[in-house]
Amino acid sequence: MKIIAHIDELRKCLVEESKPIGFVPTMGFLHEGHISLVRRARQECASVVSSIFVNPTQFGPGEDLSRYPRDLPRDLSMLETAGVDITWTPLAEEMYPEGFNSWVNVEGITKRLEGEVRPSHFQGVTTVVTKLFHIVDPQKAYFGQKDAQQLAVIRKMARDLNFPIEIIPCPTVREKDGLAMSSRNVYLSPEERQAATVIFRALGTARLEFQNGERDANKLRDTLKKILSSEPLAVPQYVSCADTETLKEIEKVQEKALLSMAVHVGKTRLIDNLILEE
Amino acid sequence: MKIIAHIDELRKCLVEESKPIGFVPTMGFLHEGHISLVRRARQECASVVSSIFVNPTQFGPGEDLSRYPRDLPRDLSMLETAGVDITWTPLAEEMYPEGFNSWVNVEGITKRLEGEVRPSHFQGVTTVVTKLFHIVDPQKAYFGQKDAQQLAVIRKMARDLNFPIEIIPCPTVREKDGLAMSSRNVYLSPEERQAATVIFRALGTARLEFQNGERDANKLRDTLKKILSSEPLAVPQYVSCADTETLKEIEKVQEKALLSMAVHVGKTRLIDNLILEE
Repeated sequence: MKIIAHIDELRKCLVEESKPIGFVPTMGFLHEGHISLVRRARQECASVVSSIFVNPTQFGPGEDLSRYPRDLPRDLSMLETAGVDITWTPLAEEMYPEGFNSWVNVEGITKRLEGEVRPSHFQGVTTVVTKLFHIVDPQKAYFGQKDAQQLAVIRKMARDLNFPIEIIPCPTVREKDGLAMSSRNVYLSPEERQAATVIFRALGTARLEFQNGERDANKLRDTLKKILSSEPLAVPQYVSCADTETLKEIEKVQEKALLSMAVHVGKTRLIDNLILEE
Repeated sequence: MKIIAHIDELRKCLVEESKPIGFVPTMGFLHEGHISLVRRARQECASVVSSIFVNPTQFGPGEDLSRYPRDLPRDLSMLETAGVDITWTPLAEEMYPEGFNSWVNVEGITKRLEGEVRPSHFQGVTTVVTKLFHIVDPQKAYFGQKDAQQLAVIRKMARDLNFPIEIIPCPTVREKDGLAMSSRNVYLSPEERQAATVIFRALGTARLEFQNGERDANKLRDTLKKILSSEPLAVPQYVSCADTETLKEIEKVQEKALLSMAVHVGKTRLIDNLILEE
C-alpha cells in the first residue's frame, strides 16, 4: 500500500491506477464499519483509495476536533490488510491554504436533525468531500449508513452538482450488543458503554412496533423517547421519524422512513438510525 | 459538429472524444470574443466542446434573463466553422430539476464590484460552471478577460475546490473603435452605440496616465469618472482600481491592478476592464 500526503504526489500516483477507482474517505481511528466499506470497494473496483483526514471545517466551536481520537499506525495497518492500494493522509494546510474561501452548500436537507444542532457541520462535509472527489477522481465512493444524514446530503450534492461518481451506501456495522460502531465510542467509560446500548434497544423496539403494523410516526418517536428515558445516563438531543430523502419529519410512515437520534451519553454525543421499510 | 441537448447523451458521446478536451462555456449570441476562445481551444486541445446555456440562476430579479438575445442557428454555424467538435445546449429543466438545492459559493471576492450590485450573480455562475465542469470533464476551460471578475472568481473556485482543470484566460476582443464585444451590445441604439465608446476612451486614458508614471489609484479612478462624465448618455454604476486577485480597491498601484467599471448606456448595462501592468 502506498501512503501519500501531498496532493501533487497523489495526483501523479493516481494516473497509473487501474479504473474503476473506489474511494473510501475516513477521519481515521478506524473500526470494522470503515473496513466493511473498503471490502465492498475491493470487490467492486480495480483500485481502492482511502483517505484519513480529520477535517477541521466540519467541527463547530466547542466540538471535539482537538481531542478526536487518532491512531495512524493502526489505521494504516488495517487498511493495508483490507487491501487498499493508496492511502492519502491530506495535510490541513494544503487542504485549506491561507485565503481559502469557497464552499459547497446543500440547502434544505442540511438544516434539519444534525444540521439544526451543528449548523456549519454539513458545509464542512460537502466542501471537503468535493475537494477529495476532485483530487481522487473516483468512479465509486463508499459511505456508511451510520451517518444517515451525511449520506443523504452527499447523494443530494452528487445529484444536484452532477458529480460523475456513484455514491454507494453501506450498512451500519454493530457491536454484538447492537451499539453502532463509531470512532467516538472510545470516549465512553465502561458504565457509559453499557448505558449506550439503550440506543439500539430503542431503535429495535420501534422497528418491532413498525413490523407489527404501527404507522403513526408520533407513536414511533414516543417509543424511542420512552425507552431512552429508562436510561439515566442517556440524554436525547433529538429523536426523529423522517422521510428518507428530504429528512422532513412525517406524520404517517408510508413505504419507508428513517428513524434516527442523537443522544448524549455522559459527555459523548452518539448518533444512530434504522431505515423502516415494508 | 455534434449538437447534443441531454446530459446522458452528452456523457456517452464524450467517452469517445480524444483528450485533452478543451471547453468553452457560453450563453450564446456569439461574437468574435467567443470565437477567439474556441480558436485557442482548437490550437491547444484534441477535442473542443462548447456549451450554449442562458443560465437562469445567474440573473437577478429585474435583470434581462427573458430578453437576453438568442440566435441558435447562427451560433451553431459560427461554432462549426470555428472547429468545435460537440456543442451542448443544456435544458434548464435538466440542469435545475424540481428540488434542486445545492450551490457553490466563493466568498469574499464575489461581494465586491459586480457582486455588490448583483448579489446572487456569482453564486449562479459558480454553481452552473461546477455542473458544466462535472458533466463535460474537460482538461482546459477558456474564459474571456472581458468578464474579469467572473474569471477571477472561477480561478479562485477552481483552486480552492481542486478542480482538475486548467482555467485559461483569453484577451478581450474589441470593435475597431475600442468597444468590448458583448452580446448585450445589440441592445444599444445607434446613438447609444456611439456613446458607449466613452468606456474604452476612459480606460485607455487612465492606462496612458499609468504608463506615464501615475500610481495613485484615486487619481486613476478620478480619470475614469471624469471622462465618463463627458458623455451624458453614460451613467457609471461603479469605477474601480483594484487588486487583480482579491479585487479589493487599492490606494497605490504596485506591479499590477485591474481597472474596471460598470456603466449604464441608456437601459443597457455594460462592463469593461483593463489590466495595468508595468
